Amino acid sequence: METPLDHLIKRLARLPGLGPRSARRAALYLLQNRETMMIPLAEEMTDVAHKVRHCVECGNLDLHDKCSICLDSRRDHARICVIEDVADLWAMERAGVFAGTYHVLGGTLSALDGRGPAELGIDRLVKRTEQIMVDHAEGEVILATSATVDGQTTAHFIAEKLTPCQVKITKLAHGLPVGGELNFLDEGTLAQAMRARTNL
Amino acid sequence: METPLDHLIKRLARLPGLGPRSARRAALYLLQNRETMMIPLAEEMTDVAHKVRHCVECGNLDLHDKCSICLDSRRDHARICVIEDVADLWAMERAGVFAGTYHVLGGTLSALDGRGPAELGIDRLVKRTEQIMVDHAEGEVILATSATVDGQTTAHFIAEKLTPCQVKITKLAHGLPVGGELNFLDEGTLAQAMRARTNL
Repeated sequence: METPLDHLIKRLARLPGLGPRSARRAALYLLQNRETMMIPLAEEMTDVAHKVRHCVECGNLDLHDKCSICLDSRRDHARICVIEDVADLWAMERAGVFAGTYHVLGGTLSALDGRGPAELGIDRLVKRTEQIMVDHAEGEVILATSATVDGQTTAHFIAEKLTPCQVKITKLAHGLPVGGELNFLDEGTLAQAMRARTNL
Repeated sequence: METPLDHLIKRLARLPGLGPRSARRAALYLLQNRETMMIPLAEEMTDVAHKVRHCVECGNLDLHDKCSICLDSRRDHARICVIEDVADLWAMERAGVFAGTYHVLGGTLSALDGRGPAELGIDRLVKRTEQIMVDHAEGEVILATSATVDGQTTAHFIAEKLTPCQVKITKLAHGLPVGGELNFLDEGTLAQAMRARTNL
């Protein structure tokens, strides 16, 4: 017979990064810290599940209909960085290298997974870009999808859709990661790094 | 300003097996599966936090004051396996090599962490052992604490306390783990495996 504890462990094991073994450890840890961890965690989860929503503008997760990045007047609203998901947005924000706005696709184009241009909000992105050209006369869309086949296909599709807007379209540089050692690098990256080499 | 989502991620990162990076991934996964994962998980957590308690007999976690192992008449109630925590009990049950009952210490003796004989329920273990000798005339206490200094110190302390009961006291064998390769093994284990060698 399965107890509620078994159910909880099974559900914890479905979280990315946790397996059956670590789910059991996590469940025990929670039980040993009921008042300080287990009950607050459950409450916070319920709270976040009800409060957090997608920004109507960019697709970011926030407590309001428009996210804090889209509402921030100090950011450069003439630049949109197109990324696959919110985790990428968080990574960009942690790096602190971009002060514009975002468009979160929520994945890449995929016939298999039934994700077409509508699911990725590409019409919304085109409309925002058109508005940028009206408001600022110039703008930039940075295609920062993954360096995978799906990511690059999606980037090319978006670039085509944006061509009529006459906006500047850029993509992230490819090359050696910081701290990367040559002998651990795949040939594709090495080839790109060589082709895009710069003067010292 | 910290949002409820930040709080949730920080709390998830405190779970064993999750770090800041995987906590973010887990939080995103939960948000993307609110109805099927996030809300049920929060509910199950609340449910378990309120329902699960320690068995008054052995310290195991269960829904009732006496756990299903202590209540199971098909198990050998003349044998007690002493383990450090519930995770060890689960490991023993998965291995299916022991059909007796348990005593969950909840840790090892540690002056530093303020865990003395009372915290480990050693008096309760002695009383259970005395009762076994009355009911069954013979019995066995298997000391299955970890092969660490603390684990072995605790085992010796318990063995001393149980001596007046005249119960059979055993401990788990030390040696080569199954599938273990000699060249990866520490010298301590190798020495124990050599000393305890058996005839082929």
